[in-house]
Amino acid sequence: MNGLKPISALPQELRLGRVDYASVMSIIGLVVMTLGIAMLVPAAVDLRVGNPDWQVFVVAGFVTTLMGGLSWLTTRKAAARLEVREAFLLTTLTWIILAAFGCLPFYFASLKLSFADAYFEAMSGMTTTGSTTIVGLDSAPPGILIWRAILQWIGGVGIIVIALAVMPGLRVGGMQLLQTESSDRSEKILPRVSAMAGTILAIYCTLTFGCLIAYWLAGMTPFEALAHALTTLATGGFSTSDSSIGHFQSDAIEWICTVFMFAASLPFLAYMRYLRGGLKALGEDPQIRLFVILAGCAAAVQAMYLIISNTMGHADAIRLSLFNTATILSTTGYAAADYTGWGPFYNAVIFLLMFVGGCAGSSAGGLKILRLGIIIAVLKQHLSRIIRPHGIFPVRFGSRRVHDDVAVGVSGFLFLYLAAFAIVALVLNMTGLDGITALSASVTTLANVGPGLGPTIGPAGTFQSFTDLQKWICSGAMLLGRLELLTVLVLFIPRFWR
Amino acid sequence: MNGLKPISALPQELRLGRVDYASVMSIIGLVVMTLGIAMLVPAAVDLRVGNPDWQVFVVAGFVTTLMGGLSWLTTRKAAARLEVREAFLLTTLTWIILAAFGCLPFYFASLKLSFADAYFEAMSGMTTTGSTTIVGLDSAPPGILIWRAILQWIGGVGIIVIALAVMPGLRVGGMQLLQTESSDRSEKILPRVSAMAGTILAIYCTLTFGCLIAYWLAGMTPFEALAHALTTLATGGFSTSDSSIGHFQSDAIEWICTVFMFAASLPFLAYMRYLRGGLKALGEDPQIRLFVILAGCAAAVQAMYLIISNTMGHADAIRLSLFNTATILSTTGYAAADYTGWGPFYNAVIFLLMFVGGCAGSSAGGLKILRLGIIIAVLKQHLSRIIRPHGIFPVRFGSRRVHDDVAVGVSGFLFLYLAAFAIVALVLNMTGLDGITALSASVTTLANVGPGLGPTIGPAGTFQSFTDLQKWICSGAMLLGRLELLTVLVLFIPRFWR
Repeated sequence: MNGLKPISALPQELRLGRVDYASVMSIIGLVVMTLGIAMLVPAAVDLRVGNPDWQVFVVAGFVTTLMGGLSWLTTRKAAARLEVREAFLLTTLTWIILAAFGCLPFYFASLKLSFADAYFEAMSGMTTTGSTTIVGLDSAPPGILIWRAILQWIGGVGIIVIALAVMPGLRVGGMQLLQTESSDRSEKILPRVSAMAGTILAIYCTLTFGCLIAYWLAGMTPFEALAHALTTLATGGFSTSDSSIGHFQSDAIEWICTVFMFAASLPFLAYMRYLRGGLKALGEDPQIRLFVILAGCAAAVQAMYLIISNTMGHADAIRLSLFNTATILSTTGYAAADYTGWGPFYNAVIFLLMFVGGCAGSSAGGLKILRLGIIIAVLKQHLSRIIRPHGIFPVRFGSRRVHDDVAVGVSGFLFLYLAAFAIVALVLNMTGLDGITALSASVTTLANVGPGLGPTIGPAGTFQSFTDLQKWICSGAMLLGRLELLTVLVLFIPRFWR
Repeated sequence: MNGLKPISALPQELRLGRVDYASVMSIIGLVVMTLGIAMLVPAAVDLRVGNPDWQVFVVAGFVTTLMGGLSWLTTRKAAARLEVREAFLLTTLTWIILAAFGCLPFYFASLKLSFADAYFEAMSGMTTTGSTTIVGLDSAPPGILIWRAILQWIGGVGIIVIALAVMPGLRVGGMQLLQTESSDRSEKILPRVSAMAGTILAIYCTLTFGCLIAYWLAGMTPFEALAHALTTLATGGFSTSDSSIGHFQSDAIEWICTVFMFAASLPFLAYMRYLRGGLKALGEDPQIRLFVILAGCAAAVQAMYLIISNTMGHADAIRLSLFNTATILSTTGYAAADYTGWGPFYNAVIFLLMFVGGCAGSSAGGLKILRLGIIIAVLKQHLSRIIRPHGIFPVRFGSRRVHDDVAVGVSGFLFLYLAAFAIVALVLNMTGLDGITALSASVTTLANVGPGLGPTIGPAGTFQSFTDLQKWICSGAMLLGRLELLTVLVLFIPRFWR
């Protein structure tokens, strides 16, 4: 990707020419090629167990690689350029197009999914949501199972790279706050991507490998351990069983899962700083501190409620409350037990946690701890200003000054997030879903969590019974939520194209 | 009230002395005396129809006037001072104490209400919410009925004065935007109150009188017309019948009610400007423009839904959709028909409208159109900034520049409002209410609307079946919502008292 001119290095007048579609298609072509090549993994898995689906993967992989290669070859000679608008277009198109190619195996395999089902499944994978339309995972061919996991794993590392290297330059919803070091303050997108992608991938692979080994030692088969490690670190939540992590009935596996889900929802910048600055760097991050406090309180409230209401014993209450806090806050969406029957209060807490999500700069979705922290800081400043009208109270998050444009961006994002939640819920409700299902489907897809509430899409259910229209709406909501809404919506503003 | 030193006229150091409780108690004393004297109206009404409750009103009026007088007499000699902190304390205490005296007739009258019921009813009146704990309004003594209406009418004009003369100086949640004329920009609270209170009261009385005449001509008895005119202009919603406006079964009355509810939720500043600048001043107000657009769209969606779903004919659908939009957006809470059975989509629209509320500077509650407009403007600016990182896009609402401190204040308010909604709903849910009742009770009390959703507190129900604890929680939520949350919460910050 050398030779591409960096964003914002040119004066503004020059940057408002025509959108450089060739550069966008060239990069997407490269990524699609990679996806096509990745389809050889499930092909090999299916071939090994003798499942005829291996042919589907080989053909789909061939078509995908070919299309990606053609797109790359026909556009790569263009004078490559990646500026603000190209970056927006690239990000949104990448997810839409990758899901379109990624769904081919689901559509053509022996599962008998409709195209809406298959696209929903691929988008759920690429966005690390984890909602599923497939019933009968336990008897599904291993190729399909590992392909779902691979899609989430790719989507997970993809979003971390986008969040750390692209979003800060795009200033979407206050994401410029993720520029922490002075050296990161430049607006150059592509150099940031190449500088960071290697480190991010190394951390991501290390954690995934650690998780795989731990699952394996705790009793999973190597295949299950791999599939779950891929989707744990992606905070995706696709499992190899309809009953998710609950299938293993193992406290050890649930504890391991909890630890790695929490690890996966911490900001990857902190890990990068840890590699350079030691453990101190982790504790200094205000996002991590707020995350730990919030997760601790949420788990404590849940555990106390479960104990007081005599739903289960102490050990189970603590383990499952931590697990559920981790799976919802990290927006993974694994289920260890069906909490639908644990009372409306417990379900209400889960519902509220869905909105929050993990740390910005991880693969977790939701509003993000970073934004929650900034909103709380803004509120504190507002209260101080009310009491002392002439005092000066800068908004701070940790030791960093939050400038007004960040505060305003975060506020705009919060409103948009809630408006999107209400609109998607209302539209789903209009198409015939009941209240709880519509509300929780809206938030679980927008926040990329996975399961909803209620009998249909609860932790024990799937999205299979949704109509095609409802599945397309949910696919759109997953995309919107994953790309921080604004990245997608900005494309619908006429001024963007002028 | 002459001789009181204005807020902020002193340098900051001087204004951080001890809170001047004497000045606060002196003004509250005056207001309580007024309330006591107002109790003579229901006493006269009950005496005329020969209901023995007239003695309750006389005694309660005597006690109230005496207590108010004592408070005023014992403190009026203190060097009167009304600065930021006194204004906060005064506002919150006024509502709490007025409700305490205002509830005496409910408690001691022949209704057999518990003290929690009576205080809930008085707080619902003073905050112009309109939720009720009284079952059997149609057979209730006229004194009680008119006292409920008077409480709302006083609460309504009280909140308009507070919003226009006090809140801008307190800068609560962006309320400084209500300072529109250059002459209004001073931070002097008491001079503003005396300058504006007369005009506000004149407009309020004129509109009330117009509404009374219209209701009477449309077929209400003079008593019913007075009671409903008082609660229509207060956007309160207390009625003389359990079936509210639906009792009259009159299209004319419903149309009149719709018009005056809309009129009561417009900003009173616009009326004041209209008196000076003519009709142009009304159309120039960006709050009014946004309100008209929002109300129009909301009513159109409702009417189309009712027509398409064959719930009723065209004329009824249009009339009732406009009525319901008016009653919910203005946060009045009258019911013309029980919409509980009109399908989940219709109820979801009603639920969303509850959050919005009317214009800031009226007696309507909710988030307020002003804040909605600013949040939309902030979002627009954020989108523009994303596309053109180096462009300059000031946030504008109408022709006015919205400064960053206002935008930040509004954002903080939005977050706090939603957090309060979630917390109150969660707590009500914990105390045993079902999901829909808890959610809608939370928003209807915080936004001062009145009725909730579901069989218990829906437009055809009351809050009577709530436990005392639930009633106290709701009373607190009404107070919080009415006083823009921050006005009350600021008192709980230790720094406030230092």
